Amino acid sequence: MAWLSRVAEPGEAEIHRLVRARGAAEAARRIRSGEVSPTLDRATQARRGIDRAEADLAEAGCLGIRLVTPTDGEWPGAALQPLEVAAAGGSPHSAVALVPPVALWVKGEHRLDEVLGQSIAIIGARASTPYGEHVAAELAFGMAERGWTVVSGGAYGIDAAAHRGALAVGGRTAAFLACGLDVPYPTGNAPLFEQIAAAGLLISEWPIGTRPQRHRFLIRNRLIAAVAAGTVIVEAAARSGTSATARQVVRLGRSLMAVPGPVTSAMSVGTNELVRSLDARLVTRVEEVVEEVGAIGADLAQPREIEQDARDMLDTTASRVLDGVPLRGGATPEEVAVASGIPVGEVLRALPRLEIAGLIEACRRGWRLAPRRRARRHDATQAIAGTPGR
Amino acid sequence: MAWLSRVAEPGEAEIHRLVRARGAAEAARRIRSGEVSPTLDRATQARRGIDRAEADLAEAGCLGIRLVTPTDGEWPGAALQPLEVAAAGGSPHSAVALVPPVALWVKGEHRLDEVLGQSIAIIGARASTPYGEHVAAELAFGMAERGWTVVSGGAYGIDAAAHRGALAVGGRTAAFLACGLDVPYPTGNAPLFEQIAAAGLLISEWPIGTRPQRHRFLIRNRLIAAVAAGTVIVEAAARSGTSATARQVVRLGRSLMAVPGPVTSAMSVGTNELVRSLDARLVTRVEEVVEEVGAIGADLAQPREIEQDARDMLDTTASRVLDGVPLRGGATPEEVAVASGIPVGEVLRALPRLEIAGLIEACRRGWRLAPRRRARRHDATQAIAGTPGR
Repeated sequence: MAWLSRVAEPGEAEIHRLVRARGAAEAARRIRSGEVSPTLDRATQARRGIDRAEADLAEAGCLGIRLVTPTDGEWPGAALQPLEVAAAGGSPHSAVALVPPVALWVKGEHRLDEVLGQSIAIIGARASTPYGEHVAAELAFGMAERGWTVVSGGAYGIDAAAHRGALAVGGRTAAFLACGLDVPYPTGNAPLFEQIAAAGLLISEWPIGTRPQRHRFLIRNRLIAAVAAGTVIVEAAARSGTSATARQVVRLGRSLMAVPGPVTSAMSVGTNELVRSLDARLVTRVEEVVEEVGAIGADLAQPREIEQDARDMLDTTASRVLDGVPLRGGATPEEVAVASGIPVGEVLRALPRLEIAGLIEACRRGWRLAPRRRARRHDATQAIAGTPGR
Repeated sequence: MAWLSRVAEPGEAEIHRLVRARGAAEAARRIRSGEVSPTLDRATQARRGIDRAEADLAEAGCLGIRLVTPTDGEWPGAALQPLEVAAAGGSPHSAVALVPPVALWVKGEHRLDEVLGQSIAIIGARASTPYGEHVAAELAFGMAERGWTVVSGGAYGIDAAAHRGALAVGGRTAAFLACGLDVPYPTGNAPLFEQIAAAGLLISEWPIGTRPQRHRFLIRNRLIAAVAAGTVIVEAAARSGTSATARQVVRLGRSLMAVPGPVTSAMSVGTNELVRSLDARLVTRVEEVVEEVGAIGADLAQPREIEQDARDMLDTTASRVLDGVPLRGGATPEEVAVASGIPVGEVLRALPRLEIAGLIEACRRGWRLAPRRRARRHDATQAIAGTPGR
């Protein structure tokens, strides 16, 4: 598989079909001997004489990079299902063949299938604005907080903001790169890639040493579009590469979402246009993204009542302590005492009860609201922000 | 008519019906003598003993304000047609009765029917941001430049910016006020109202001396929603009065458009939400507004014939299914089956044929009619996207 991963550019439909029909070993034998179609012959001619498979695997291994293939237990078959379907259906008019990867190079401790099992893509322009980066980070933070893996492309701008947002909440994030995992691009994001590999996964179809090339980004993008239950595009210029990815998302049957922005911002022209022309779902906050992709429902309406019941059972003191627990970041019992105006002794007695009731949770810096409470307080914030205008 | 204009609050459905059935003179006689339904009796009791009709007309005349009635040549019958249709159909669930005005008080030199003949409403929050005011003024400028009358409500914020944008290009603008034209509200806009009266028209259902009251704004809003070919909402807070107007626009069969804004701006929460929940058309520049409403003019005449041809080729079942597909919002095949009275199995067979014929289109919530003006672009989108709807 390592050899197949290098012999032709990823996203080559005929290699996919050959491997599927004959198995990897036989496919490799035929490619080596040239017993293939003219198309595949052309696609593999340049590199079929080179055999770096053993070296690739060995060197990658030294860098903590492994090759995951469809026969491995962690192969993300379910996440890649849309590409299987598209490949089976054929997609002659696509600029990029919508076929599954032959294999994936992965760096990070988590299992690939687990990380991609429940994932949301948050992507957008490199030349982003502070507004876009803020929104991308907020959405990523909120989705990671709810247990979703934030998938993106590791680029400057929106992608980086999304990865960072997920990392900030201690959540999982995965970056699909369009180059070898040992030559991270852009190099300015190298420290970020280290963090991603530690907390989540770096993933690529290209073997080590491969430099990024323009066409590789679009081929890489199909993987992001495919594995994520939905893709949120935060900022995009007019006629940018992002709109090509947006079309892939739609073709792969995944949810396409776009964050609106000022009509006066060049970086929101693309996202506003996606809502107009591709019927992208306009999303403004994390709850709306969850509503779009988390339609499983288990998370939604139900908890509100449970939470209300839990709260109703609190006495006045506990209720005031709850109101003194912060949304994010965490507070010590002393800080909660100050915030709630309840003596610290009583706060210390109330906190465990609130935790058992599922209303708060312990974190590194103390106590904070449980995710559901945070969502609720966020709604309240929105309600306050929305003063009757007209 | 001047008497009828004062005896009950505008927007009273029963007065409309009575005048329509018996004529204005007989309606006035019956109201005076109390020979009316209990509802109408209650609605007119307080003021039916007062006769200020002559005085109203005389005093208004001195102020350059005239009363325009349905028998006058300048009565905007075509512009008010949506209210006639809604009134005929009944609208029991509406907070505001969607009935035409009994008469309109008007200030300004132009003919009422000409000013409202080709008009676009640009409305929004009073507590607007510089962003919203900028966009409102730009859109108004562009529409007025193209010969459209900019209709709005004369309020601070977005409304004022829209009027000013139209005035800036020497275009026409009309303000529908919710008070007597001699007591302009808000008073800070009095100089603006003078300019509007000089370049366009001030219009009100209320006789002179009437002060604005909260409920009058929503009654007034139905006129704006009705007369304008489309309504663009530029900024709106969450759950503001603007969303009630937006629903009126949809119910009256007019185009609803919304300008997106930063998700971090409280003043764009309402407009972003309109795109999400009411399927408002997202617009970012004047060309897109023209594209949405311009179809009423010469543009649409031609395609209508083509559509008629396509329609003529349908068999009875397909034709009935087509009649069951809604204009907006979308309906599931099951809902179309209910609406058309055709078994769902046959509906499912007919829908794709209607789509291919360009008569309907898939949308997020199912199927809706394909306005011919959108058909071409939609085909292009589908060709790229490949899959119908999502």
